[in-house]
Amino acid sequence: MVALRFPPFSLLVFSPKTVISSSSSSLAFFRRARRPSPSRFQLCFSSLSTQSEQQSRQEVGKDDGGTLPKEGVITPRSQDFNMWYLDVIYNAELADYGPVRGTMVIRPYGYAMWEAIQDYLNVKFKETGHSNMYFPQLIPYSFIEKEAAHVEGFSPELALVTIGGGKELEEKLVVRPTSETIVNHMFTQWIHSYRDLPLMVNQWANVTRWEMRTRPFVRTLEFLWQEGHTAHATEIEAEKEALQMIDIYTKFAYEEAAMPVITGRKSRLETFAGASRTYTIEAMMGDRKALQAGTSHNLGQNFSHAFGTQFMDENGQRQYVSQTSWAISTRFIGGIIMTHGDDAGLMLPPRIAPIQVIIVPIWKKSDEKAGVLSAATHVEEALKSAGVKVKVDSSEQKTPGWKFNFWEMKGVPLRIEIGPRDVSNGSVVVSRRDIPGKQGKVFGISMEPSTLVPYIRDRLQDVQASLLERAITFRDSNIVDVSSYDELKAAIAEGRWARGPWSASDAEELRIKEETGATIRCFPFEQPEGLKTCFMTGNPANEVAIFAKSY
Amino acid sequence: MVALRFPPFSLLVFSPKTVISSSSSSLAFFRRARRPSPSRFQLCFSSLSTQSEQQSRQEVGKDDGGTLPKEGVITPRSQDFNMWYLDVIYNAELADYGPVRGTMVIRPYGYAMWEAIQDYLNVKFKETGHSNMYFPQLIPYSFIEKEAAHVEGFSPELALVTIGGGKELEEKLVVRPTSETIVNHMFTQWIHSYRDLPLMVNQWANVTRWEMRTRPFVRTLEFLWQEGHTAHATEIEAEKEALQMIDIYTKFAYEEAAMPVITGRKSRLETFAGASRTYTIEAMMGDRKALQAGTSHNLGQNFSHAFGTQFMDENGQRQYVSQTSWAISTRFIGGIIMTHGDDAGLMLPPRIAPIQVIIVPIWKKSDEKAGVLSAATHVEEALKSAGVKVKVDSSEQKTPGWKFNFWEMKGVPLRIEIGPRDVSNGSVVVSRRDIPGKQGKVFGISMEPSTLVPYIRDRLQDVQASLLERAITFRDSNIVDVSSYDELKAAIAEGRWARGPWSASDAEELRIKEETGATIRCFPFEQPEGLKTCFMTGNPANEVAIFAKSY
Repeated sequence: MVALRFPPFSLLVFSPKTVISSSSSSLAFFRRARRPSPSRFQLCFSSLSTQSEQQSRQEVGKDDGGTLPKEGVITPRSQDFNMWYLDVIYNAELADYGPVRGTMVIRPYGYAMWEAIQDYLNVKFKETGHSNMYFPQLIPYSFIEKEAAHVEGFSPELALVTIGGGKELEEKLVVRPTSETIVNHMFTQWIHSYRDLPLMVNQWANVTRWEMRTRPFVRTLEFLWQEGHTAHATEIEAEKEALQMIDIYTKFAYEEAAMPVITGRKSRLETFAGASRTYTIEAMMGDRKALQAGTSHNLGQNFSHAFGTQFMDENGQRQYVSQTSWAISTRFIGGIIMTHGDDAGLMLPPRIAPIQVIIVPIWKKSDEKAGVLSAATHVEEALKSAGVKVKVDSSEQKTPGWKFNFWEMKGVPLRIEIGPRDVSNGSVVVSRRDIPGKQGKVFGISMEPSTLVPYIRDRLQDVQASLLERAITFRDSNIVDVSSYDELKAAIAEGRWARGPWSASDAEELRIKEETGATIRCFPFEQPEGLKTCFMTGNPANEVAIFAKSY
Repeated sequence: MVALRFPPFSLLVFSPKTVISSSSSSLAFFRRARRPSPSRFQLCFSSLSTQSEQQSRQEVGKDDGGTLPKEGVITPRSQDFNMWYLDVIYNAELADYGPVRGTMVIRPYGYAMWEAIQDYLNVKFKETGHSNMYFPQLIPYSFIEKEAAHVEGFSPELALVTIGGGKELEEKLVVRPTSETIVNHMFTQWIHSYRDLPLMVNQWANVTRWEMRTRPFVRTLEFLWQEGHTAHATEIEAEKEALQMIDIYTKFAYEEAAMPVITGRKSRLETFAGASRTYTIEAMMGDRKALQAGTSHNLGQNFSHAFGTQFMDENGQRQYVSQTSWAISTRFIGGIIMTHGDDAGLMLPPRIAPIQVIIVPIWKKSDEKAGVLSAATHVEEALKSAGVKVKVDSSEQKTPGWKFNFWEMKGVPLRIEIGPRDVSNGSVVVSRRDIPGKQGKVFGISMEPSTLVPYIRDRLQDVQASLLERAITFRDSNIVDVSSYDELKAAIAEGRWARGPWSASDAEELRIKEETGATIRCFPFEQPEGLKTCFMTGNPANEVAIFAKSY
């Protein structure tokens, strides 16, 4: 396969007919295009330190496998998944590299995906009784040390402020890597009686973790997330809350992001630093690596003991609160890209897409222009007032063929083409992003809003459903049930996920990680019936676990 | 005047009639209440460093004038404005102090005000062609040094990360105090041709400035804001954009926050570090000090020269872009509190209020309870489905009288009371927060949604309008036109604002600041007609300036 390239503006203008047929053979078509010169996107995400452009060019590819995203070029996914991923992010203008190693600028198109995630989750969080608020990001270093597992987990990746207002600080301050400690410090002051419980809050914030190996969206030095924090009178309530929130994440993944995650419990080794139990949603990416896309922790009384977070119960007894925390981050955007994208670029589920419908007006002669543009505007207005996210690309510097491919690369679910003949017929042509070429193209849909609007709505639902279905099929065909370590090794070597009964030790879990690179992603909530035998030890097992390599 | 105190839960329960009359004499009523013990809110906002609770108790009042907010106590505004402000913030649960000196936790009720601000501005920003995005908060120290005025303005208040992942960093990193430098670093990479302009983005983010004297909302070590950044082909376009954005802020202040700000241009001394011109909205607080509530900067080509941000114009010539930046922060919440609040506590404009209508069901006998609660729920549902932000306070631990005062203190614009007699009459009692006692109370409003919903909507509009009108009257009665320095000194000594023709030097402006504590808040856009003579020098003057003490 050859890299897909976008043609420069100067390429010939097509008649509507040529354009319509060209999209079905876009790869062949673009082979003729001039390869653009390498762009300045050669700034490597994982070079060693703060860098100028020059430095970065020397360090290119250090961690990301020698990848050099190029303007107008999408490396085929099948050829180099990692490079494809970076090409898509660059060309679809989702993100760019910040000047400090491992930081990322989220560009408007990528940020709009984050806003779609926020809009959905914010409503769900409020419906379930949570309030938004904001905790400071600077945390006294001593706080981090209070919970033993927590400090062990986080201390290697802390960013520390040591100078403020020109002076050396007496105590180093941690730039928030997560907020359990400061939350507990405040909860201890706010919670007095059982009447103050449950206390259920959430914040949308940035967090900083000094990661050594970074990757846009998936693992960055700073990222955006929401972190929910709750305190309850009993362990049972905390457990119920942790399960409720992982359920909200699961529904979000399926229904909005069309990502068929597997929901389950983390192994002890993979549990959050400071939690009693961690629930997770694990998504299969296009390269079949797992992505932990969201977690919900039952913190038990670990932090409440460390911070003395107590309440007076109905009998006048002092009790420690039981707590949860749960988070989804901008990493989810990486998950959406790697679940649905294809060789042509991004493919977005309509419920996440910043633009759901792109309208491409097509004209050849100048006397056709006014009619075509006016029709495009009418269609745009009709869809917009029906709540569809729609945009008209009427720029004259680019050919319709260029636009078709550009908006496909940007993952827009539906395209409406309107040419002079369509205008005289009062109809439009509608193409689906998820079905390439002629198969995904329907001619002669009436422009009349009473017909067009429900038609577009139905097609958006179709695309949403088809993306999910496709991802389920892909996932299920890549999970292998194993009943021996050898079978597991074979499955992992093939790049697939292995599912098998497990009751072995932490040490054996670590051995698998060392020998195969795979970890327990989760003990899925959906468990097969019947007696099970641990594939590692031959002992009885209560549950199957899923093993996979992961991001 | 005596401090208003909230009674403990245990106070007697009133009959509906008693309750209704009690609110008109709440001050007298509360004199009888037990004074609650000092709360743990004695954490001082401006103590010296990271602190434990004990430390902070010793340092209490160090910077905030010895203020000790107490649970259930609102110091009268007329007695001690500063203490009143802190009491309101604590008792209305708007914010709390973070563990690090000068940091603030924004609690749900305060954060909901921020969300109202965000919801309004986000729509306006997008309508005017701006996209949200996100820039990293860690900025190489060298960036800050590139623009001479900028580094001079910001270097004293920087927080620096010097350790990351356990290692000393080669280059110190600045925790974003504002983003012009990193924005320009990225703009330089994204902008090539005139076709890439204008580039208009915004981000909602946290910023950190190592302030020595802090005050909740008004000046904190870390705060939340939006910062808009735009690049244009010409200075004229940049100027137009800067003016457009200060106009959006002005409309927001008047129409949403009911704050009659005075909009104008900053003096050269007060211009943003790195800007060519700064526009500002200046609000008069209840103590008649000025609050700079939002700014919009025409950055000219200062940052584009420092960062080499150039584009190829239509003639193939390389040109520097002209830029703007503009911001509103959580400081605005402090402005709302200090504009409208009174001795009873917060008073919120309906368009900002997290709760616009509080419903207090009132019953005495247990056989009345079900009917009253059911009516309250019906009214709640009717208002909720009409888009009114409404809450029922049906808790049984507190008396109706306590609730009346509590929700007045929280600034809820309207209260609906429903007692057994109201239920049998099919009517409710509606009270306005802005008109105390019987005057603000209307009996016998039908519960029927077709009557009640429009009635409530109209009253919310009335409260909104009345708050603005009252603030305008207050403002205008506290601005003095001066024609000599002596008149200015007299006005400032009285705590008022002085307005007078000004064409004197920076040195004379500084002298006024030293001698009176007042600074030029702005040269207002609205200027009197006719010839003017500088009150300081006797020279001709083009404009009047407004002088005031400020936060």
